[in-house]
Amino acid sequence: MTERIKHFLEEHDQMARHLQIELLEVGEGRATARMTIRPFHLNSVGVVQGGAIFTLADYAFAAASNSHGQLALSISATITFMLAKSEGVLTAQAVEISRNPKLGVYDVKVTDEAGSLVAAFHGLVYRKKEPYGG
Amino acid sequence: MTERIKHFLEEHDQMARHLQIELLEVGEGRATARMTIRPFHLNSVGVVQGGAIFTLADYAFAAASNSHGQLALSISATITFMLAKSEGVLTAQAVEISRNPKLGVYDVKVTDEAGSLVAAFHGLVYRKKEPYGG
Amino acid sequence: MTERIKHFLEEHDQMARHLQIELLEVGEGRATARMTIRPFHLNSVGVVQGGAIFTLADYAFAAASNSHGQLALSISATITFMLAKSEGVLTAQAVEISRNPKLGVYDVKVTDEAGSLVAAFHGLVYRKKEPYGG
Amino acid sequence: MTERIKHFLEEHDQMARHLQIELLEVGEGRATARMTIRPFHLNSVGVVQGGAIFTLADYAFAAASNSHGQLALSISATITFMLAKSEGVLTAQAVEISRNPKLGVYDVKVTDEAGSLVAAFHGLVYRKKEPYGG
Repeated sequence: MTERIKHFLEEHDQMARHLQIELLEVGEGRATARMTIRPFHLNSVGVVQGGAIFTLADYAFAAASNSHGQLALSISATITFMLAKSEGVLTAQAVEISRNPKLGVYDVKVTDEAGSLVAAFHGLVYRKKEPYGG
Repeated sequence: MTERIKHFLEEHDQMARHLQIELLEVGEGRATARMTIRPFHLNSVGVVQGGAIFTLADYAFAAASNSHGQLALSISATITFMLAKSEGVLTAQAVEISRNPKLGVYDVKVTDEAGSLVAAFHGLVYRKKEPYGG
Repeated sequence: MTERIKHFLEEHDQMARHLQIELLEVGEGRATARMTIRPFHLNSVGVVQGGAIFTLADYAFAAASNSHGQLALSISATITFMLAKSEGVLTAQAVEISRNPKLGVYDVKVTDEAGSLVAAFHGLVYRKKEPYGG
Repeated sequence: MTERIKHFLEEHDQMARHLQIELLEVGEGRATARMTIRPFHLNSVGVVQGGAIFTLADYAFAAASNSHGQLALSISATITFMLAKSEGVLTAQAVEISRNPKLGVYDVKVTDEAGSLVAAFHGLVYRKKEPYGG
């Protein structure tokens, strides 16, 4: 199941492809994604734009929250930025904190190669009745 | 001043260019940005990825929070998604809610052509001593 | 309707009573509450505890989100603190930003007597099918 | 140090006392607090008011973020409510996620006696130069 969901995301998420974000692994209620910083991720002061970090975290969040094969739609997310980066590789790890039939809560940590926390992301999904993953 | 900041962002924010986001207007403590939905903004279920909406809002937020010519770095942001869109034009309007020498708080509303709310974004910046805008 | 909801909250919200928070006004999708700062609202450094400000904002939020007579349960809230206060009167004004049959989004601003922003609160509710207000 | 900070909070946080919240333990970058649900914690529909849960989480957050003996002021917090409770004992555990000289990020989980997640809280502090703890 989680392997099929990984392939579905890799094939159909065009925004992740546009930002060159890779999905490394999807498990039950968890996922890992990775982004090598490119010039097109940078903002006007030469560090990774908040939206690029958010998209990386959001992609891991989408994979984790849909990993049960039931469609999960993002309702809200909060992100805190701890460290500005201008090069290197960022990794996002999403874990499920809580889930009931209607709602799910996920934490995502974005770290650099040294393991330092770049951003902490907390997302909430509404779980629909329909299946996810084609 | 705000005209110079608008040009600085247009010239140097590579992520905004990569997502084809335009800055329409920058005033003191406010800004408006616009994004026509393209296939590369879509996620795996065919609606605009949360990260694309976040980037649009974040770009207006960056313009509004740096509009005073003092460098403002984003600390945290919360986004709530109200409406899924797969085509059309999205507009983000950022306004300053509060500002002291160290911190600033901004609200950004993202709407579609009909004026319906697509997302509400709330961002917090830390204001550095150095100037912004080249 | 909104008058009945105001009375229902005044009669049944024991936490608001315990903190001496008054509900000044409830309209369709909006509400105003007020709290005179008392010693029992203070934290260990002598300013109003974040939880007291949150409760004031949350009470206005509950009134605004239930004002349509349909039960609204709080899912999440974000609060940003701008100004520390140790005395005086705080006022919370809640307004509805967006509402569909299932979800509602509300902004609450907490200000002091001078109109300065003390805290900005953003809350999300899940709207149940059952009525609210007895 | 952490023992002194625990006593300082127990002695001076009047809001925690008013809500009958106990501080169980303070360590470096972490703390645990507990609240037995009382009638004055309830809202108009008979479950614990969001502000009471927030205050419990905020108290553990204050203890954890001030545990290093340097004054930490709360800037913002996000709380997600997963489970409504009307009786029993709630426990809040705060842990430090990240800390630099100016900012600190903390996660707090509020659980019931069965260990079920009642609320997830994420808080950000600004760290002042002055010491904390008397």
